[in-house]
Parts: sequence; structure tokens; C-alpha cells
Amino acid sequence: MNRKIVFGITGRLLQAMAVILLLPLLVSAIYKESNCIAAFIISACLSFSIGTVLRFATKNYSKELYAKEGFLIVSLAWVSASLIGCLPFIISGEIPSFFDALFETVSGFTTTGASVVTNVEELSHGIIFWRSFTHWIGGMGVLVFMLAFVNNISDKAIHIMRAEMPGPVVGKLVPRAKDTSKVLYIMYIVMTLVQIVLLWCGEMNLFEAVVHTFGTAGTGGFGLKADSIASYSAYSQWIITVFMLIFGINFNLYFLLIIKRFRSTLKSTELWTYLGIVITSIVIVSVNISPAFTSLSDTIRTAAFQVSSIMTTTGYSTTDFNLWPNLSKTILLILMFIGACAGSTAGGLKVSRVILLFKMGFREIKRMIHPRSVVSIKFEGKEVDDHTKHSVTTYFAVYMVCFFFIFLLLSFEEAPFDFETNFSAVAACFNNIGPGFGVVGPMGSFAQYSDFSKIVLSFAMLFGRLEIFPLLIALIPSTWRKR
Amino acid sequence: MNRKIVFGITGRLLQAMAVILLLPLLVSAIYKESNCIAAFIISACLSFSIGTVLRFATKNYSKELYAKEGFLIVSLAWVSASLIGCLPFIISGEIPSFFDALFETVSGFTTTGASVVTNVEELSHGIIFWRSFTHWIGGMGVLVFMLAFVNNISDKAIHIMRAEMPGPVVGKLVPRAKDTSKVLYIMYIVMTLVQIVLLWCGEMNLFEAVVHTFGTAGTGGFGLKADSIASYSAYSQWIITVFMLIFGINFNLYFLLIIKRFRSTLKSTELWTYLGIVITSIVIVSVNISPAFTSLSDTIRTAAFQVSSIMTTTGYSTTDFNLWPNLSKTILLILMFIGACAGSTAGGLKVSRVILLFKMGFREIKRMIHPRSVVSIKFEGKEVDDHTKHSVTTYFAVYMVCFFFIFLLLSFEEAPFDFETNFSAVAACFNNIGPGFGVVGPMGSFAQYSDFSKIVLSFAMLFGRLEIFPLLIALIPSTWRKR
Repeated sequence: MNRKIVFGITGRLLQAMAVILLLPLLVSAIYKESNCIAAFIISACLSFSIGTVLRFATKNYSKELYAKEGFLIVSLAWVSASLIGCLPFIISGEIPSFFDALFETVSGFTTTGASVVTNVEELSHGIIFWRSFTHWIGGMGVLVFMLAFVNNISDKAIHIMRAEMPGPVVGKLVPRAKDTSKVLYIMYIVMTLVQIVLLWCGEMNLFEAVVHTFGTAGTGGFGLKADSIASYSAYSQWIITVFMLIFGINFNLYFLLIIKRFRSTLKSTELWTYLGIVITSIVIVSVNISPAFTSLSDTIRTAAFQVSSIMTTTGYSTTDFNLWPNLSKTILLILMFIGACAGSTAGGLKVSRVILLFKMGFREIKRMIHPRSVVSIKFEGKEVDDHTKHSVTTYFAVYMVCFFFIFLLLSFEEAPFDFETNFSAVAACFNNIGPGFGVVGPMGSFAQYSDFSKIVLSFAMLFGRLEIFPLLIALIPSTWRKR
Repeated sequence: MNRKIVFGITGRLLQAMAVILLLPLLVSAIYKESNCIAAFIISACLSFSIGTVLRFATKNYSKELYAKEGFLIVSLAWVSASLIGCLPFIISGEIPSFFDALFETVSGFTTTGASVVTNVEELSHGIIFWRSFTHWIGGMGVLVFMLAFVNNISDKAIHIMRAEMPGPVVGKLVPRAKDTSKVLYIMYIVMTLVQIVLLWCGEMNLFEAVVHTFGTAGTGGFGLKADSIASYSAYSQWIITVFMLIFGINFNLYFLLIIKRFRSTLKSTELWTYLGIVITSIVIVSVNISPAFTSLSDTIRTAAFQVSSIMTTTGYSTTDFNLWPNLSKTILLILMFIGACAGSTAGGLKVSRVILLFKMGFREIKRMIHPRSVVSIKFEGKEVDDHTKHSVTTYFAVYMVCFFFIFLLLSFEEAPFDFETNFSAVAACFNNIGPGFGVVGPMGSFAQYSDFSKIVLSFAMLFGRLEIFPLLIALIPSTWRKR
């Protein structure tokens, strides 16, 4: 284990965090929010100092880097980013409790959007901006962000990207990891800018447009109103719906579009399955909830918004879907687990994994009927190798075991936390969605949970975002042993 | 596809069913219940006639039999047994609705024990006996039963046993399938008789002892009192607790005991894991529910009874665990999914599968840290082959997909069926347990569900008992095509 590179890169990340913190500082300065200005300056200084000490202590680290180091770097980076990121909330006094602030920060970086804030409309602009900006950074990955903009990290940075990027298979778009991360971030920034402009064209002011775009782009879900998106116009709701869906698509496909490989883009099984699930769900939910609406356009807009929001694991809402009929709620619950496409900013199992699980189910049936036959599985035009097949089913099993383990830890909570609330809270945090049902529904919050449960759910969000294994590996003490 | 053998063996089964129906007929005669006597005679005659017609139509069938035919025979046998088995309920007028009677019969044969009967204490002896007897037959398997007592079915009957017996690997105890099934049934009968005698020694009369033993042996859970086992003495409750645990152990181990291979028996990983889970759960639940009890012995007895009942998927209760704290309820819910040992009469995923899933999770971690290493998995002293590894994880994935699909179908139900009720109803039926939480808790029943939901849950019980694939294969029309 090359411990030096792990701490060295974490040091670099903390220095980068200090620079990132200047952005919300600027916002606070514009709105002349003195408590926030102080909070961001102190946090940035602290982050930079710790980062510098870490870099100094690990000077001239060997650039050797393997899968193991990749997992440790990602785990350590996310935990330190969350610990530094929660400082502004505490220092500004807007979220004074450490556990609350940590929950909110982890929820931000992991693009979950679950909140313990009950008075969001009273938060200052600087804090709102920072909260939403963590979504934007976390969506594409804090380390991918750093890889894109900081030079000379390591030639084998692909191991870091693999550990941080969601989905069963992470490919390089271009030969070098650094260039891949740059391409990803450029596409991400362009799409973000387009959405900001489109929202700004509506009734939102620039600040609102930026905040909601960050929440959409990272598929996070933090906003600035107690009723989420409900009080905005149909125009804004549709823009957000479409962009949630856009940010739920595998970014590799956009890259293929840019290099004009249209046919490959259109051939994507994952894309069509994703859109198929979205459209089917919208139709069923629309029919199911229609009695509560007077106009067809309202029904479809509400259904489309909520289905897209949950499937892409964003978590914005335009209505209290907690009050919907059981059928629609169950569809939303199932979408929570499926999630959007691999290689997007979304959480959940990812559509490609679900497709592979189904294909393996069918293969098992074929193999049971004809025990001696060899049935191969194809996905996106390529044969799936044994290793990937194993990984996908094993991931699913580990995922479900973790799910029920977290659920068990949460059941130390008694009333008002019933089965529905706790189950959906785990589903919403572990899949990085945000709101669940019951007490933690779209109009509720996670504030009432005990500190213990908040820590459990914070871990759940991190486990979900990093797809379990990196953190699990980092929690094994022997991994940290020197070679 | 050898269609003749599929229908031929189903014909034989229906003839055997006619003979089996003479037993409840005898009980009805003893208690002089005229409506039941008529019902059993008519049902037996009908079963025998249909069976004879089927056998006549498939005379001289070729005895060639492969995996595919095995699945179809098992599927067809279970569906026909359920359809014939529900006739006495309908004809006697004690459960007049077809959907109710079918649900009750499927619940019996699959050893689920979920009931739509709200006035169980008013049912006649004959009907109570038949209901519980279906547990006993279904526990070890209706076809294994027939294989044990009917001659000359097929040399390749192992394919039928494999399709019917639960667990990831079905081994032959002795070279011939027919002898294996005989050995299994002899052990089953001896253990049943021991329990009847022990219960009879307590305050139960012979009829009560027989009914509760059938419910225990098949890990079913049908009884004859509205409060299940609550009103019986501590002695009877402990006897049932111990026997539930005994019937949850892999029968292969008893065979090893008989042939005096003590060391192999004691080396069983599955056995120790099973007992470990049971004891850990009892300890946690005891501590968690202790405030509600005055004496320690009551606390432990109640916890031990309920944990054993749920883990072995029996479903008897001595208390309304619906009112327990969240932690204990969640432990019960997780035990519902784990189930007891493979090769026992219990449902659920089975302990051996859960062990393998955990082992594969750890292997995946090792493989991620050292991508080029080859890590093998050992279970019960043997290396697990690739095929079994694939089957276990794929089964789990298919299992979860089926679970959520059934849950989706059940969410057409509105209030009083909330999330907890529906979720636990699916868990309780799919894992062949019986009672769930909420409306379908131990003091409630499934009576209020619509006919549609009852059919869905009946299928869920069959899918759970036959471990999904046989029925799934039988539902694919092309499987039935002639070769």
C-alpha cells in the first residue's frame, strides 16, 4: 500500500476545496452576509492549511497507484470533503449542530438532497449556494473534478476515476484519464450553462436559476423553497424535468454525439430502456393520479416531473406524492432502486445493471431447461465477460445486504418513524434520491431523526454514491497496512 | 418435450390425492360431520376420475425425462393439487368462495399458513385436519411423497426431486431417487410421531396434538385457535419451538446421523450459522421486548418462540408481534427473507444461499483489491463450482425482482392496506411464512384482500415454495412445444 500517495492526493484535494470555497464566499460578499463571509474564509483557510500540511508530510510521493490505492483515495477524499464542507454551516450558525451539518453536507456531495433543514427559506444566499454547489461538484465526482483541473497527479489516475465513477463498467473516453475527466467536465459545464440560461428566461432570477440548475445537474435536489419546485411555473417545471432526464443519461453518449458517432449513440440499449421505463411509468402514474387533477396537462406534467425526479434520483417535487395512491407510490419506490444510467450523475442501481440482471435471469432459465448449453450474454453489442457478470450479481447481493443492514440500524427509532418512513428513508439515502415517504416525504425532513440515525444515513449516502466497495475496503484495517 | 409423461405423472398424482383425501374423510366420519363427509367423498371421486382419464390418455408414456419435464411436472402437479385440494372447502360450504378456498389450499400445500379464515374456531374437525394435513404433505413435497409410495414412475425421477426440493444443491442420499424419497419420508414420519406424542403428553388432546404437529413439521402454521398458540401452556410452546427448529434443519444431516457420520454432521457450516442466527436474534429480541414482560422466562420463551417460528417460516405466534418495537419487528422481517436450512421443509432464501452470498461478497472485495488473484470459495468443505456461484447470485436477483413485481401488483389495494401491510404480506407469502405485520399481522387475516390480490398472493406462495424457476419455465408457452 502506497500510503503517501493516498494522503498526498487528499492534501491536494483539500487545497482545491479551499479554492472552491471562494465561490460561495463571493456570493456571500455580493449579498453582504457577514456571518457567511467569515464562515467561508475560516473554512477555506483551514482546508488549505490541512491540505498543505498533508502535502508537506507526503512530499515526493511515489506515483505508483493501483486499484487498492484508488479506493482508499476516493474514500478518504469524500470523507474529508464532507468534514471540511460542513464547516461553513456550523461556523455561520445556520446549521449549528455538527451531525445536522455533516448530514446536510454529505447529502449535498452525494447528490442525495435529503435535508435536516426545516426553515430553508430563512437560510442566507451564501449557504444556499454552497449547499447546491456541493451537488454540482459531487455529481461528476470531487476527484474527477480535481483530475480535470490539477496537473501531474499520477499517470494511473484511471484507478481513481474507476473507483469514483458509478456503473458496472467505466471506460476511458480518450486515452488519458486526465483528458477524459476534462472532456466530461467541459460537457457538464456546457449543459449546466444552457440550463441556467433557460431557467433564467422564465420567472426565476439568476440566483434561483443557478441553484436549481446545480440541483438538477448533480441530480441532487436541494432548492431554496419549502415546497421545492411546486410554486414555479409550468415552463420552469418542464425545463427541470427535461434536464433531469438529460443529466440521467450516460455522459459517454454525449461524447459519442460530439465525435459524431450518431449510430453508436442511437444503438444504446441502456438509453432506450431508460427512456422506456420513464415513459411507461409516466403513463401509469398519470392514469393512477388523474382523479385528483382537473386538467390533463397538469396531470402529465406532475407525473412526468415526479417520475423523472425519482428515477434520476434528483428528488425535487412539485406535489406531495406521499398522498398519492399506493400504486403510484410503489412505482416511485421501484424507480428509486433502479436509478438512471451508468456514467451519469444519478444514483441507484443504474439501468445497465438492471438490464444485465434481467439478462442473467433469462440465461439461468435457458440453462435450467438445457443444462449443457452455453448461453452468452450480449450488452451494447458486446459479449459480457464472466468477470462483469459475476460483479453485477454480486454487487446486487451486497447492495441488498447493505440495504437491510442500514434498515436494521434505523429501526432503533420508534414512533413517529414507522415502517414506511424508515424503509423509504434508507431507500432515499442509499440511492441518493432525497425525499422518501411518511415523515421524510417531500414536505417533511430528516430533522427528527436521532444523531445516531443521522450518522447511519450519512454513511448510507456515501456508500450509495461510491457504490459500496471503496468505502467497505477502506473500512478494513488491513488494507492500510504498508507493503 | 415429453408431454405424455408430464400429464401421465400428474394423472398418477391426482389418483394419489384421492387416496390422501380418505384420511380427512375418516376424521370427518369419527366426528360425524356430514357436510364434510360428502365433501371429501365428492372431491376424492373427482380427483380419481380426472387422474384415471389422464393416465388412460397418456398410456405407455415413454419414461424419458429431463430437467425440463421435471419442472413442468412439478408445476402442473402443484397447481392441480391446489385446485383439487380446495374442493372440500368449497363443497362443505365452510369456505364457500373459490378464491378464498384456493388461497387457503395453496397456503396449506406451500406451508405458508396465511389464512383468509376469520372464524377458525368454528371450522369442523375434518376441514381443520385437511387444512393442516396439506402442510404436512407440502412440507416434504407432494411429488416426493408420491415417489416414495408409488412404484415405477421413472428412472430419472431425480429431475422431479431436484425441481421440487428447496435449496441451491439437491443431493441424492442414496443412489436411487425413489429410495432417497423413502428415506426422507421415513425420517419425517418418525419425527412427526415423536412430536405428536410429546404434545399429547401436555394439555392438548390427540386432535390438537396432530394438527399442531402437522403445522410444525411442514413449517406451515395453521392451527385451530384464533390466537394461534398463545393460550397453550409453556410446555407446549417450548415443544413446538424446539420442533420448529428441528424441522428447519437440512434433512441430509439427520440421514448422516442415522448412518453414524457424526463428524460430518457437526461440521455443517449451515447448521451452525442457522443456530447462530437463531440465538443472536433471540438475545436481541429478548432485550428489546423485555420492558413489556414481568418474568425473564416469559420474555425468553416468547422471543424464542417467535424467532423460531419466523426463521423456520412456520408462522405460529404466541403474541401479537405486530405491537413489538421497531427493532424486533425489523429482525423478524430480515429473518423472513433468510429462512431456515436448505433441504428442510422451510421457505425463504435458505441459510446456505445467504452464506454463499456473503462469501461471494467477500470474494469480490478481495478481487477488487488484487484484480489478478484467483479466489476460490469453499462451502461445507468443498470448493463451490462456477455454476453454483452463478446460480446463487442469479437466483437472488430473480428473487428480488419477483418480490418487487408482486409488491407492485399488490399496490392496487388502497387503505387499510398500507405500505407495511402490503410489503410484509408479500414477504410472508413469498417466503411461505404466514402472518406479516399490520392488517395481516398474527391476529389479523388476509380476508380483506380483493380476489385479484388473493390470486396474486397464491401465485407468490407457489413461486416461493417451488423457488421461482419451475413455475416461470412452465409459464413460457414454448416450453410445452413437442420435440
